[in-house]
Amino acid sequence: MAARFESDVYARRLERAADLTVHAGFDALVVGTGPDFRYLTGSDADTFERLTALVIPARGRARVVTARLELASLRDSAIGDLDLDVVDWVDGQDPYALALAGLADPRLAVSDTLPALHLIPLSERFSHAPELATGVLRELRMIKDDAEIEALRRAGAAIDRVHARMGEFLRPGRTEGQVAADIDAAILAEGHTVAEFIIVGSGPNGADPHHEHSDRVIGVDDIVVIDIGGPVEPGYNSDSTRTYCFAPPRPDIAAAYDVLERAQAAAVAVARPGVTAEAVDAAARSVITEAGYGDRFIHRTGHGIGLSVHEEPYIVAGNDEILREGMAFSIEPGVYFGGDWGARIEDIVVLTADGCEPLNNRPHSLVRLAP
Amino acid sequence: MAARFESDVYARRLERAADLTVHAGFDALVVGTGPDFRYLTGSDADTFERLTALVIPARGRARVVTARLELASLRDSAIGDLDLDVVDWVDGQDPYALALAGLADPRLAVSDTLPALHLIPLSERFSHAPELATGVLRELRMIKDDAEIEALRRAGAAIDRVHARMGEFLRPGRTEGQVAADIDAAILAEGHTVAEFIIVGSGPNGADPHHEHSDRVIGVDDIVVIDIGGPVEPGYNSDSTRTYCFAPPRPDIAAAYDVLERAQAAAVAVARPGVTAEAVDAAARSVITEAGYGDRFIHRTGHGIGLSVHEEPYIVAGNDEILREGMAFSIEPGVYFGGDWGARIEDIVVLTADGCEPLNNRPHSLVRLAP
Repeated sequence: MAARFESDVYARRLERAADLTVHAGFDALVVGTGPDFRYLTGSDADTFERLTALVIPARGRARVVTARLELASLRDSAIGDLDLDVVDWVDGQDPYALALAGLADPRLAVSDTLPALHLIPLSERFSHAPELATGVLRELRMIKDDAEIEALRRAGAAIDRVHARMGEFLRPGRTEGQVAADIDAAILAEGHTVAEFIIVGSGPNGADPHHEHSDRVIGVDDIVVIDIGGPVEPGYNSDSTRTYCFAPPRPDIAAAYDVLERAQAAAVAVARPGVTAEAVDAAARSVITEAGYGDRFIHRTGHGIGLSVHEEPYIVAGNDEILREGMAFSIEPGVYFGGDWGARIEDIVVLTADGCEPLNNRPHSLVRLAP
Repeated sequence: MAARFESDVYARRLERAADLTVHAGFDALVVGTGPDFRYLTGSDADTFERLTALVIPARGRARVVTARLELASLRDSAIGDLDLDVVDWVDGQDPYALALAGLADPRLAVSDTLPALHLIPLSERFSHAPELATGVLRELRMIKDDAEIEALRRAGAAIDRVHARMGEFLRPGRTEGQVAADIDAAILAEGHTVAEFIIVGSGPNGADPHHEHSDRVIGVDDIVVIDIGGPVEPGYNSDSTRTYCFAPPRPDIAAAYDVLERAQAAAVAVARPGVTAEAVDAAARSVITEAGYGDRFIHRTGHGIGLSVHEEPYIVAGNDEILREGMAFSIEPGVYFGGDWGARIEDIVVLTADGCEPLNNRPHSLVRLAP
């Protein structure tokens, strides 16, 4: 029973999705459960082997197809208030035929989370191969409205409160796993519905950007990367990284961290409507590269965020998407010294009319905690 | 860093998967992250927008394709010990071309969790439409080996311990959500890695088989359905339902519950190698139907279980799959009286040479707790 916005929010989104479907030349948009489904209906239903899908035809009424058994799980969504038909099915019926009834050999756009289990039976019915709806749905989901930005602000403030309490959890002599368990509880206590991810990367583990946590005992001389986040109702995610230490850092670490901090600030400074996603990446990367650490920054600068932790726009070389007001994404450069240490600084920002608003506001420096 | 079996277990599975791929007439099997990937490699990696896949060609060496950034997450899997190539890619490279290099217009079988985001770009490269690998992988995953059965036994015992403690959590005057929070902690404390699902259906909420939990305050006269489970290492799931009360049940409830208990026992009694999945469903359903409650049993009798909570074989009318030794599935009939109450009894069973071994062993009666 997830929280959601008022029903008129979903009514407007549905209408825009139908317009964009027509405009992109598709005959219907098929959205399986997942973040796109939640975006359009307010339902966080998650069915796997039994098809639940929203079908938006270019002409005619939209419909939601679902197993009769799942009907109750849609009750708290906006679906009952929307201008669409609800079609339920029972074991033995063909949900794909019900989903696409009345559509003669349509050109289908499908949501990117639709699993092969459902996509292949849908595909087999028609001569046109389905295409990804990413282009249709990204236009909607990339630009956050005021209510979404407010939810992202609450998420950012909630994860900032967890970082503010890091001294309670993170101490030499504890394992990464023990620290992660405390952070998990704090993420919930500070208002998230679940701890979606917790990275506690101490010493050499900090050099792996995708390390989660381990039984490694944290040492007093370690640099520790803490990258944490999760959703607040109605489903919008936080994601913020800070890097910690207990003793004065080695001079080489202090020097590299200083470069990283300048790189992160440089990317925030250029993030505004009208610049490209890759220009924001380049702003961070050029600071790091010019200081001689280019080969230590081994990932993109950021990712969009909203109902998904990772979504459009991706802040990466080669993405010439022009950024617009209302886009929300991470700015998170990092430097990684395999076998030794790593560091990352990550804030979520939302683009305003002439710049950006950071949603995370904890200090960016290498944070020194009591050992 | 998930636990896994010894590497030779995965080596054998990989070899069998290759044999079955050839036998089914495919040129290659493509397995995205998810339970099939974990089954074959021991890795619980879960990448979405960046392709990670195991490709098993009918001829030649298997390969794992993954983003360079994700390489470390595969480190603890069996992949390094297996007879396959690891191919990593970075932003800007074409992971689909790397995945299918050397395969000229192949007939592909794909795992059922592969999302449209990856399946469509794969499909577009070839004239043959990919088919579901379900038929190949189900043959492997449906029959559990001794190590898997041992893991399922541990999972069953762990969730039984949670049901045994239900009197600590479930009391009139508490909300379903409060009870669920305590059950969540107990599921972890009793050895699961996560509480995968928690249904606390009190009074009328018990009449919705897919209700989760709510702010409803539990009453002293309520019947309460508790359906809970989650994975134990290395990833095998528990799933068990018991129904509780605090006061002597109404005569109509006691009568219907008695029928339900006989129905569940009848299905367990017929579950053995050589009978069909639908015969097990029919055994439970006929008891309920003959007692006049047929329209109250609104779902299938059960589902296979293993690395996924729901997998083959499904115990449902129309499934004429002949059951075999080593199959593991739930037997969980229920009766649902909308707006009033519901009940369900669920055990996991594993088929032995001549019958079945229930992995859940708490009493099947309507369990009366102190109010």
